[in-house]
Amino acid sequence: MIELLKNRSSIRSYTSEPIDETLLDELLEATIRTSTTGNMQLYSIVITKDENVKRELSPLHFNQPMIMQAPVVLTFCADYNRFAKWCTLRDADAGCGNFQAFTTAAIDALLVSQTFCIAAESKGLGICYIGTTTYTAKAIAEVLDLPKFVVPVATVTVGYPASVPQQVERLPLEAVLHQDKYTDYGDEDILQIYERKEMLDVNQQFVKDNNKENLAQVFAEVRYTKVNFEHFSKEWLEAIQGQGFNI
Amino acid sequence: MIELLKNRSSIRSYTSEPIDETLLDELLEATIRTSTTGNMQLYSIVITKDENVKRELSPLHFNQPMIMQAPVVLTFCADYNRFAKWCTLRDADAGCGNFQAFTTAAIDALLVSQTFCIAAESKGLGICYIGTTTYTAKAIAEVLDLPKFVVPVATVTVGYPASVPQQVERLPLEAVLHQDKYTDYGDEDILQIYERKEMLDVNQQFVKDNNKENLAQVFAEVRYTKVNFEHFSKEWLEAIQGQGFNI
Repeated sequence: MIELLKNRSSIRSYTSEPIDETLLDELLEATIRTSTTGNMQLYSIVITKDENVKRELSPLHFNQPMIMQAPVVLTFCADYNRFAKWCTLRDADAGCGNFQAFTTAAIDALLVSQTFCIAAESKGLGICYIGTTTYTAKAIAEVLDLPKFVVPVATVTVGYPASVPQQVERLPLEAVLHQDKYTDYGDEDILQIYERKEMLDVNQQFVKDNNKENLAQVFAEVRYTKVNFEHFSKEWLEAIQGQGFNI
Repeated sequence: MIELLKNRSSIRSYTSEPIDETLLDELLEATIRTSTTGNMQLYSIVITKDENVKRELSPLHFNQPMIMQAPVVLTFCADYNRFAKWCTLRDADAGCGNFQAFTTAAIDALLVSQTFCIAAESKGLGICYIGTTTYTAKAIAEVLDLPKFVVPVATVTVGYPASVPQQVERLPLEAVLHQDKYTDYGDEDILQIYERKEMLDVNQQFVKDNNKENLAQVFAEVRYTKVNFEHFSKEWLEAIQGQGFNI
């Protein structure tokens, strides 16, 4: 199990082999044992296999090819709709139109998504998180018919790996770990932490391909720019508010 | 592996047995292979074993006994501090003082927390998420010395189980699963989905103990009230903003 977690890679290329329904059910049955706040299970999983629906989702994920290629796309949603409806029927007010309620449901959905991914990988499937869900959440909600109090927070593609890439690097464990309290980083610490990442051939090539001076600039000025982050902050906030959560 | 996920329970009572350092490292090394956005690893894990620090944390988690009893408490934090410092040293602007950046880092931290929990459970340890982190994030940040751009998003206690409780109920899988698109729930669907949960002896006792008419009212009027949710929404928003993310 630990070896499985240690040796995994995200998979971005899938064979055409479908995923057996029995296996999918088995993975999902295991997934719903994930801890949720107060055992309220404030999430929904939209499991999309239909080509037409995937075609609608694809541009909202910036046409990343995994959406069309993977046999199954899962959209994990923060969901207070089901719970609020139950409360209403039982003469109670779920009181969920607020930021804390959204956060609680989003956490539920994200923990559930990660359990699903690990369950899937334990059965030889490959997964990839598609990092665009919070950028285009409003349009995704429209495509997937998400009602009030339901917000998509993560999208995962899953299928059998067509190829397994070499594992990408990670920062050394000490870089992300703090004993008892947080110890802030000095300049020297930072340079040491990122040294191996910066020196890797693949990352040096990445810098060249992007015509930048260094890897940090590729991230900050090409991939995750301030302008885009600020734009998508507004969109994300509007998406959450549009689904009924006041922030 | 699937059986492990299916049969798990949250553990709220621990033996005094410490967790071996080698084992903890093994779990954490596996944990950092979790997918993160752009492999930026925008999280930190604060691993607290010191009694005095746990004593400071305890009231911030409403004195839930797991904090003091568990040998190890982990606080998973959205962390743009390390990355932003690296960018600054490399003449790049991480542009992270916004809601999307916070969300990206929070998602990283939450996926990582769930991998840790599954890794721990696979080695016979028991875990419990403590659902108070986003309520008292500002005070937790102070106790743990979290700098700008670091926000706690989940707390997990871990240790060897003193007792393993009976598994609590879950909604049937169909209740949380939607095929291709979201199918909204009619009243009859809702009543059917929650029927088993409402009928369970333990939940009927829970209703009596709380002097309420039904289970939904216990959740909405006792455990997760609108007044509290709205109060903690403000606190949570202020905590995130106070750590440097504008929303």
